[in-house]
Amino acid sequence: MQGTVGELGEFGLIRELTARLPLTSSVELGPGDDAAVVQAPDKRVVATTDVLIEGRHFRRDWSTAYDVGRKSAAQNLADIAAMGAVPTAILLGLVVPADLPTTWATELMDGLRDECQVAGAGVAGGDVVRGDTITLAITALGDLQGRDPVRRSGAQVGDVVAVTGWLGWSAAGLTVLSRGFRSPRAFVEAHRRPEPPYHAGPAAAELGATAMIDVSDGLVADLGHVAQASGVDIDLRAADFDVPAQMADIGQAVGVDPLVWVLSGGEDHAIAATFPAGVQLPARWRVVGTVTGPARAAGRGRVTVDGAPWDRTAGWDHFSAE
Amino acid sequence: MQGTVGELGEFGLIRELTARLPLTSSVELGPGDDAAVVQAPDKRVVATTDVLIEGRHFRRDWSTAYDVGRKSAAQNLADIAAMGAVPTAILLGLVVPADLPTTWATELMDGLRDECQVAGAGVAGGDVVRGDTITLAITALGDLQGRDPVRRSGAQVGDVVAVTGWLGWSAAGLTVLSRGFRSPRAFVEAHRRPEPPYHAGPAAAELGATAMIDVSDGLVADLGHVAQASGVDIDLRAADFDVPAQMADIGQAVGVDPLVWVLSGGEDHAIAATFPAGVQLPARWRVVGTVTGPARAAGRGRVTVDGAPWDRTAGWDHFSAE
Repeated sequence: MQGTVGELGEFGLIRELTARLPLTSSVELGPGDDAAVVQAPDKRVVATTDVLIEGRHFRRDWSTAYDVGRKSAAQNLADIAAMGAVPTAILLGLVVPADLPTTWATELMDGLRDECQVAGAGVAGGDVVRGDTITLAITALGDLQGRDPVRRSGAQVGDVVAVTGWLGWSAAGLTVLSRGFRSPRAFVEAHRRPEPPYHAGPAAAELGATAMIDVSDGLVADLGHVAQASGVDIDLRAADFDVPAQMADIGQAVGVDPLVWVLSGGEDHAIAATFPAGVQLPARWRVVGTVTGPARAAGRGRVTVDGAPWDRTAGWDHFSAE
Repeated sequence: MQGTVGELGEFGLIRELTARLPLTSSVELGPGDDAAVVQAPDKRVVATTDVLIEGRHFRRDWSTAYDVGRKSAAQNLADIAAMGAVPTAILLGLVVPADLPTTWATELMDGLRDECQVAGAGVAGGDVVRGDTITLAITALGDLQGRDPVRRSGAQVGDVVAVTGWLGWSAAGLTVLSRGFRSPRAFVEAHRRPEPPYHAGPAAAELGATAMIDVSDGLVADLGHVAQASGVDIDLRAADFDVPAQMADIGQAVGVDPLVWVLSGGEDHAIAATFPAGVQLPARWRVVGTVTGPARAAGRGRVTVDGAPWDRTAGWDHFSAE
């Protein structure tokens, strides 16, 4: 286990990584064969893939391998939850430079495994190849348990818009880190290791959510996808968001309006959903807006804040951002 | 659609790529939401992930984007078939440099789509991010249709070993290409675009295959995985392999024993399986060996050729090969 992955070799590394994985009830056949076998009791499987690259999606000097594992699993498992499904398994495609310490790879796997455990899923399989840049391709699978998937396209005029989970914490943490600080710890930790509200996705589906989305690009941007897919306009009320006092303090210290973090910051993997007006939501949901009307033209649905356009970016395009 | 993917942007490229995808019966919800929904009538889903990197797994000067798409889909879909399952869908994680021509990405997608169509699957979703090196992470899903998965670990003493599909063609083509030639076309084509016998996997399961594997590292190497997982020794008979006259000619021209291509060459994605002695196999299967006895020690199962060790490599370790 000492040394680099190049010294260990492909099969040796795969052995090290898979040895760390516990048996999981949803994974009938785990790593080691041509393919894994994962339970899909609903007769449909929900599936999503994300790719994360060192330097673009994570930095080894800002996050431990364990945290990268937790975060990259969380990002994918949250997409499953936001369909109203229960995560069952992930698969990992991993590109590693030959000089990468083996411990980095094994700690990454520990993080993936532990985040899967939080979400009720298992690591079912994967592939490891050598390359210049650490790259993770994670596929998450989930089960709908008989529910219809909650798509982006179902929001109805008159619905309320509600959110659950953390908003703006990761973005505030990223701002802190990018200015060279390591604290306040709560925000830095939130950036390193998001805590998606996995259970809230299936629960929202049960409560009659008409549309739902994982907040990964920023709330306004992601609700923009809902507005466009549903052909509706959405208005958010700034006063209805919770800006914690500590976040306000940091905002003042670094000269950022914390509402920008809350409305435009991604990566917390909160869940946003629309519900019929009058829905009784559990305490951890917060109603923050309404579906105000039909979009003026197809595919033109838009999101406003207090009736005005919101153009204060932290939205994220992997091709234009550097 | 002109220009580079950097000019087009992330969302523009995703639109271009998904616009090329037809509706597929096994994909209930395709790209465009937080996750896809794929049919899994068996209540289990077979899942596998492979990563392919430019320069290591493919070269743009040797293969068109379309061929890279065909081949990388084939590689994953073959793993599904080798479990005895029918492919249902793939997901694509794609890393592209900003200066990549958009047409390269769209032709890649055309290749993925067409290979999926051959296998009866659909492209259900994916992710696109920018990076320095073209990287494809493909996850394939499949359905067992009520059959048990055929694992590597089920080979029994006395079983026959049989193969179906092409063996050595891709390796012969790679040798030709690496010496700077573009012909004979049949082998070069086989290297660029393998033709896995998808239907043979589920059919072998129906015929009672006790163990099965996709031949991707070379027949002897891959049967070595079966021997180890099953705790048995396997002996192959060289005379029982079909070495086409044209392959023998090329071998003579380049100074390579064509049996090395057949026994040690990977990437054709043939299927190898063990069956109880006396099985009646369809014409396209060829019996090439037997399971001779239990392994002398746990995990020590080995493969011999005409009773002798086979150490003439074209086996492939992505970490040690350069």
